[in-house]
Amino acid sequence: MARLQITDIEALRANSAPLPLTVAPVTSSDNFKSHYTQSHQLAKRWESHFSAESQHFQGSEFKQTSSPAGKRRIITLGTGRPTAEYYPWESLSFKAHDVLTEISNGTGNPYITTECTIPKYGDAYNLSVGLNYGRSAGSPHLLRFLTEHIELVHNPPYRDWGVFLSCGATAAFEAALRIFCNRGDTILTERHTYPGSLEAAVLNGLQVYAADMDADGLIPEALEGLLICWDKSLGPKPRVLYTIPTGQNPTGFSQPTERRKAIYNIAEKHDLIIIEDDPYYFLRLGDYTPGKESEMSAKVFADESVPSYLSLDTSGRVVRLDSASKILSPGLRAGWVTASSQVIDKFLAYQDVTTVAVNGPSQLMLWSLLDCTWGHDGFAKWLVHLSAGYQRRRDIMLRACDCYLPHEIAHWVPPRYGMFLWISVDWTKHPTFENNLSSTPRTAGVNPDGLDHELQTLEARVLAESLEAGVLVAKGSLFSAARNVGAQRELNFRMTFAAAEEDDLEEGVRLFGEVLKKEFGLTGISAV
Amino acid sequence: MARLQITDIEALRANSAPLPLTVAPVTSSDNFKSHYTQSHQLAKRWESHFSAESQHFQGSEFKQTSSPAGKRRIITLGTGRPTAEYYPWESLSFKAHDVLTEISNGTGNPYITTECTIPKYGDAYNLSVGLNYGRSAGSPHLLRFLTEHIELVHNPPYRDWGVFLSCGATAAFEAALRIFCNRGDTILTERHTYPGSLEAAVLNGLQVYAADMDADGLIPEALEGLLICWDKSLGPKPRVLYTIPTGQNPTGFSQPTERRKAIYNIAEKHDLIIIEDDPYYFLRLGDYTPGKESEMSAKVFADESVPSYLSLDTSGRVVRLDSASKILSPGLRAGWVTASSQVIDKFLAYQDVTTVAVNGPSQLMLWSLLDCTWGHDGFAKWLVHLSAGYQRRRDIMLRACDCYLPHEIAHWVPPRYGMFLWISVDWTKHPTFENNLSSTPRTAGVNPDGLDHELQTLEARVLAESLEAGVLVAKGSLFSAARNVGAQRELNFRMTFAAAEEDDLEEGVRLFGEVLKKEFGLTGISAV
Repeated sequence: MARLQITDIEALRANSAPLPLTVAPVTSSDNFKSHYTQSHQLAKRWESHFSAESQHFQGSEFKQTSSPAGKRRIITLGTGRPTAEYYPWESLSFKAHDVLTEISNGTGNPYITTECTIPKYGDAYNLSVGLNYGRSAGSPHLLRFLTEHIELVHNPPYRDWGVFLSCGATAAFEAALRIFCNRGDTILTERHTYPGSLEAAVLNGLQVYAADMDADGLIPEALEGLLICWDKSLGPKPRVLYTIPTGQNPTGFSQPTERRKAIYNIAEKHDLIIIEDDPYYFLRLGDYTPGKESEMSAKVFADESVPSYLSLDTSGRVVRLDSASKILSPGLRAGWVTASSQVIDKFLAYQDVTTVAVNGPSQLMLWSLLDCTWGHDGFAKWLVHLSAGYQRRRDIMLRACDCYLPHEIAHWVPPRYGMFLWISVDWTKHPTFENNLSSTPRTAGVNPDGLDHELQTLEARVLAESLEAGVLVAKGSLFSAARNVGAQRELNFRMTFAAAEEDDLEEGVRLFGEVLKKEFGLTGISAV
Repeated sequence: MARLQITDIEALRANSAPLPLTVAPVTSSDNFKSHYTQSHQLAKRWESHFSAESQHFQGSEFKQTSSPAGKRRIITLGTGRPTAEYYPWESLSFKAHDVLTEISNGTGNPYITTECTIPKYGDAYNLSVGLNYGRSAGSPHLLRFLTEHIELVHNPPYRDWGVFLSCGATAAFEAALRIFCNRGDTILTERHTYPGSLEAAVLNGLQVYAADMDADGLIPEALEGLLICWDKSLGPKPRVLYTIPTGQNPTGFSQPTERRKAIYNIAEKHDLIIIEDDPYYFLRLGDYTPGKESEMSAKVFADESVPSYLSLDTSGRVVRLDSASKILSPGLRAGWVTASSQVIDKFLAYQDVTTVAVNGPSQLMLWSLLDCTWGHDGFAKWLVHLSAGYQRRRDIMLRACDCYLPHEIAHWVPPRYGMFLWISVDWTKHPTFENNLSSTPRTAGVNPDGLDHELQTLEARVLAESLEAGVLVAKGSLFSAARNVGAQRELNFRMTFAAAEEDDLEEGVRLFGEVLKKEFGLTGISAV
């Protein structure tokens, strides 16, 4: 079916109304969607999925009526939005990578640096607008780019989808819980997941039930098992699935296309909202073959594309959370959410009375770079560049793991996406447990509580010894969502290749490997 | 009693540990308070005031343990904070007013413009830190300045107060409701108040009971009346008072010192948390005398100082919300909250799982301007400059009101603080009501519902006619918190002198005056 292409963007924009340059203009992603979207069916209605709290919440009437529309000049004595005369900043500039102009300087940044200046006034988006109050949806200037981006990349297969700018995916997830869940409800997640999300669930009085994972991420049958056997005495049947489908945090696992389709079908059958938390979608690392140089190019990047849940979403049941954190910078505190417009309206209502809007400097920086400097082509180039960098870092870490981790006890799956590597350690081979277990089957015969306590002690000890040796890794138990699957009988550690200096990655893994070997009494026997 | 002075700051900083320059360092305002604070008593304990939701909520263990402390170099494979190598921005610069160097160029900005550049790396707070993830409390660099600022200005009279950086006062207020209130609780406010706050209360399932105001703001006896007569069938006795004490939104009224003390005493007696929403505290306008030029200077500014609730708070029951919006710029989405450290810990916990931290560009811009360029002296100069500008605008508006509003029906109190002017209109003199009321006392004998409907219609009509004439004012009913005092029998309009071009203020008021005169059949008879 015909869909929006980058080459259509210029005409799409030329045929649309010019972007408003007033303070806090009313805007909507509907203004920026292409005519292709009109041929799709409408989303289902989601009223029955809203929480008691959000059901009737419309946001701020005050804010929604405070910007007069139309072209007539109005003297505004209405809203307390202080004039830009009284902002002490007169202009904002930055230097950034111009991905459109490559240079070959041997190492490091392959791009020239370009300077952008945003003045206080003028006939483009500027400080007098960007540093004033903004609307919950975002500035039309940035929202246009991101709406186009969503259509170009995900092309949601229903008509009435919308996008808004969120204050980061963490804030958006917490708002999603408030929008869809009542206290006492249960949400479904992967067996291991992002602790910040678990903590937000706890805050909102929610139970978390986890479905098992394998190296392809969430297992559809495990998910459906939870739903089919749902015992009403546990509370209402879950209506929300939270999943990190690509380069999952913490495991680095990614769901293949078929699995996504199977999970979407389960969501259709059991009428689940899918919260798709997908910050690693564009960090594409491809294959890893020991001893072979990995390859990254626009073609490899495109070949590694995997359909998002949003792109499969014929019913409008997906709430897709994107984030600037992993592909541009975390400090911007900016992301974007795509969902059916019914759901987006609820997010806007919550943002009205909490964070109001994404901060202006970040919006200006994003707009100036993405829209004015790079364009959609340039943004795609940046993502390929980024993927090449993360691929190189991943390869360094994987080679170090091959070399320094004790293969007798440590296992991992080379991640194809994202920034995480999940090291599973066979705790049964630890001297403490091996002795205790010697006369019994390895998975039975030991008091579960005692065992778990010992496992926790072991995990903490490995962490402390690693830190003592000079390397920080993350304890696997921090990511355990397994309230429903009993106490944990696993020993895992998460490592990331995103944060350290590239030159330190190998040494970090080596130090961690030494700790594991020493702890498991394997010194000297695991060199490969 | 001896307290911190600006002249002490240099020594205070010299004797403190150097600011950390690691990514997302653990920090606390405790690091930046002076020794003077040690002589005060501790705050009371507030556990009993926390909501069921917040009572046991500790925030993100994950985030709290993700930054190793100490000086040893640690290779971090632990936390997914992407390296600054992969942020496309290489430096951030801005031009801003250097308030320390005045120039006399006749009109407008009396300061030279200075340029500040924040590089990606280096031995000061920079983009590699500021554009990475940050901690909930804020960056130590900015938090230090703001902690000093709070102590210099408010000098809280108890020991264990704390400050953190919030994503604006709106977000902080909504979090405060979650921290202190259970659904079904009632909070107390002023008779007219900020609608965004009312809407946040509705979202959280709270009732709002309002106490009457006069030209000095909230009336202590009215507040106490609500508490003394509290009927338990209405729900638990209120534990939270929300007040905007200075340049109140929407009325522009300000509480004099004695009234603040009386209200604080009532809070002590009835054990209320006071949420002090005080964004207009530094917009000091002083006296207005018709026909006389108002005066602003550092001395007038200092003389207009009024004690904040925080500065009266011996028990630690005040939650003070400051905002950058009205004194620096709204688009930063940044503010700071001061309260007892028990309460600050709850705010930090909520921020951990929602907005995470104030965005980096705003923190960098604030730090670079306030701390590196202006210092505390310069910030004070800026606030005097700002007050002079708002004073001039207020005077223009008040002179226009004197000249163009119909005095027979419109009344107002010249505001001494803030940016708002509240116009009360005597609706009983409107032809519709005058005829209906001619044979009965003016406040009785008419079906209240019918009357209120007619009043709302009149209010909407004045608004629509004003907009048609080319001026936007705000309807008074938007600000009505009066759920407990029956339907509204007032006709008010809020005007602000903060937003329009200065040259348009007079014309805006003139247009509004014409609408009022026409609506009330007063054309031609009110010229003064």
